[in-house]
Amino acid sequence: MTDPFVVVGADAAGLSAASKFRREAPGREVVVFEKGRWISYAYCGMPYFIARYVDRMSDLLSLSPSEVDERGIDLRRGREVVAVDPDAKRVTVETADGDRVEQAYGDLLVATGARADSGPFDVRGLDGAFTLHDMDAAAAIDAYVADPDDYDSDRVDVSAVDRDRVERNAAMPAPETAAVVGGGYVGVEVAEALSERGVDVRVFHRSGHLLSPFGEAVGNRVETALEAEGVSVRTDAPVEALVGDERIEAIDVGGDRVPVDMAVVGVGIRPNTELLDGTGVDLGPGGAVRVDDHGRTSLPDVYAAGDCATARHAVTGEPDWMPLGLTANRAGRAIGATVAGDPAPVGDIAGTAAVKAFDTEGARVGILDPEAAEAAGFDPVSETVTAGSRSGYYPGVAETEVTLVADRDTGRLLGGSVVGTDRAAIRIDTLATAIEADMTVPEVERLDLAYAPPFSPVWDPILVAAKVLNGKIED
Amino acid sequence: MTDPFVVVGADAAGLSAASKFRREAPGREVVVFEKGRWISYAYCGMPYFIARYVDRMSDLLSLSPSEVDERGIDLRRGREVVAVDPDAKRVTVETADGDRVEQAYGDLLVATGARADSGPFDVRGLDGAFTLHDMDAAAAIDAYVADPDDYDSDRVDVSAVDRDRVERNAAMPAPETAAVVGGGYVGVEVAEALSERGVDVRVFHRSGHLLSPFGEAVGNRVETALEAEGVSVRTDAPVEALVGDERIEAIDVGGDRVPVDMAVVGVGIRPNTELLDGTGVDLGPGGAVRVDDHGRTSLPDVYAAGDCATARHAVTGEPDWMPLGLTANRAGRAIGATVAGDPAPVGDIAGTAAVKAFDTEGARVGILDPEAAEAAGFDPVSETVTAGSRSGYYPGVAETEVTLVADRDTGRLLGGSVVGTDRAAIRIDTLATAIEADMTVPEVERLDLAYAPPFSPVWDPILVAAKVLNGKIED
Repeated sequence: MTDPFVVVGADAAGLSAASKFRREAPGREVVVFEKGRWISYAYCGMPYFIARYVDRMSDLLSLSPSEVDERGIDLRRGREVVAVDPDAKRVTVETADGDRVEQAYGDLLVATGARADSGPFDVRGLDGAFTLHDMDAAAAIDAYVADPDDYDSDRVDVSAVDRDRVERNAAMPAPETAAVVGGGYVGVEVAEALSERGVDVRVFHRSGHLLSPFGEAVGNRVETALEAEGVSVRTDAPVEALVGDERIEAIDVGGDRVPVDMAVVGVGIRPNTELLDGTGVDLGPGGAVRVDDHGRTSLPDVYAAGDCATARHAVTGEPDWMPLGLTANRAGRAIGATVAGDPAPVGDIAGTAAVKAFDTEGARVGILDPEAAEAAGFDPVSETVTAGSRSGYYPGVAETEVTLVADRDTGRLLGGSVVGTDRAAIRIDTLATAIEADMTVPEVERLDLAYAPPFSPVWDPILVAAKVLNGKIED
Repeated sequence: MTDPFVVVGADAAGLSAASKFRREAPGREVVVFEKGRWISYAYCGMPYFIARYVDRMSDLLSLSPSEVDERGIDLRRGREVVAVDPDAKRVTVETADGDRVEQAYGDLLVATGARADSGPFDVRGLDGAFTLHDMDAAAAIDAYVADPDDYDSDRVDVSAVDRDRVERNAAMPAPETAAVVGGGYVGVEVAEALSERGVDVRVFHRSGHLLSPFGEAVGNRVETALEAEGVSVRTDAPVEALVGDERIEAIDVGGDRVPVDMAVVGVGIRPNTELLDGTGVDLGPGGAVRVDDHGRTSLPDVYAAGDCATARHAVTGEPDWMPLGLTANRAGRAIGATVAGDPAPVGDIAGTAAVKAFDTEGARVGILDPEAAEAAGFDPVSETVTAGSRSGYYPGVAETEVTLVADRDTGRLLGGSVVGTDRAAIRIDTLATAIEADMTVPEVERLDLAYAPPFSPVWDPILVAAKVLNGKIED
């Protein structure tokens, strides 16, 4: 009997792998260790819970522990894997009480995810200051934002939630003003959520436009969308400090002290790789665990997937680190098949991402930043166009901005973005497909995209952008 | 001095060609002959004018004659080209008065479009019976549907309109019931439009589901959508006759006589190729003029584009006839460049089309019909899935049905459809791009499509469909 398939981490990647493995190799054992109590939660849904678009926290859970059990997966919560011995093919597992046991593995999947990087800011010691990267934080923010007389504890209908923390936050007076530190997509979504809850929100972003990886066109449109709803935005405004003793009182930014009752810090995340410290495993961009096209690390029989692992970028062909939900699910599922004996590639990433700010939708794919394109050996040329989302005469037509980036020499499409209020974000999938197919911009211009007045003009905004960029390439 | 570039037909293909030619070859002459008075109108917008989603008929015109003039194009309306002499490189042009002149050409573009095929039905001699393939018909239907006391003639704010016909229809009593004969996309859109105008609409369709080229999944969902809004639908119901003396009184279908006050016949269109009769030009599928990848016919220096011409299908590589707006615009533009000395391919078609029925959106691409796939040498295997349009917890999530068809041997994606109420139609562009890139279904399954709870679940419905179809192919 071979040793079990051991999975570290019971979220998207880990449980996808365990589930797929169970289906493909029903006779073999799979053990999933999870250091906390939460499993299989929708990280991306947390802002919408805070906004109250989603009624109950339990709605954000894909799988309950009993459902995992029914799949024949041996899930062990409250068990932290603290060390890996790749030579002996064993992991050391620690319980909440500090007891340690050894567990042998046939194959090992490290799916430990990532955590919020609060940068220079200490949010732990300061009431009203938060990061948002787990469900307990989402529950705490929801409680803090509510007026103590008006807090609805029924929404947090999940046994795993940290009730002490929730109650402590619920008892505090509701904030009137909040600083969102960092205008990445978590920052933008939290800004909308807090604004929906009646808080006066100010977003502070370090660089020149919001949503840096989405490019200037998306960042500027989203800034306009936030401000139209009363959220103030300051760019080129790196926050220097959170100010306060017990509770947050202000932030310091660009020489100003801005009084606030709340701060949410969203300045980045970093991969949880400490488990592999000392094993000599290869790391890649962002400090994530470097993997090959089947999710294998440099250690034998050790795989990594999800927010702690790299993935191959479709444009550069090189490992990259872009922690996103589909990547985690897909890689987990592929590794589950591979370990079960049916090798499946984890798939490339194209860096496809989408974000919503009130009625505005933005999305990006590939390489948008000219410097990044040059670093990858391309000669980037780009164009941004504004075109109608529908036929000009059809009600609801909305201005849609499309940015395309291509390599001047080969015409190859390197990246793109779409932003607007009418079916804008979903249009990025067309560009993602074109990028993964190594299409050139002339090929994109000749795509037979759907034309129907309620959904798209004769020349879809993507075709308009390709046409204009081609003109520029030919000059 | 070379003879001018002569274009026959002043709609999408013809005016796109003339405009591009003028920009690329400013010193050379281009003459456009148009037999009627209308130019550059949005055929696809006519149902929405009838529905009153579009206020004024002039909104449906892309270019006015004076704007064409300003582009330096010599537009001659009321001039019908009645013969082509490819050896002498001359066309014969007839005026409304019957005068004939000869016009030499350097290059000739035939962009004569298509016309409604009313099948066995004579709609001309019967008040209240219509086809819908030109603006005069749209204006007449709008007038007929209105109550005589309530007709708004200001909406028909276009000098080209046939005012006698409009006034005659406006004077007739408004219909209470209408039969739509043929449930293709014109039929479906007209059914919605008439229903929006308060008419009790019954759709009769020859075969087993509406929208035959869109496949069963789309056809059935659209039928449900129509019936939910009070439009009755009968499938497997070929209409045998329109009944009435001066005004329509009933239709005969399947042995029943169904009384109606109106009938709109949408049973097909056919290409206008009579101009080339006797020249020996090669024709292709549907009787359309066969062209190569630059839009050239079998006659020297004679091009054809738009609804009268074939185009190469991306899946089969063979000429096909699928008259659609983008195809016409794109081919016209490419031929304008080619004739100006900068050869440009007209591009393949993927058969991408979209349709709306109230809040339901459907779209199709490629080869969906198993018999057509077999005829093209494939071994088709298909799957239809139902999946959420957004994360399951996000408000507005809607059931989206995706059908994928693949070749069993190679896994190549041959066709697909999408139907639903939330951003369904635009998702077809992802499949169109995959088809034009010759992707396999495993490649589609690994596409890095956007995941964001308001727009798409972790596994987009397209990815779900690819996953399920792959499972079927592997079995």
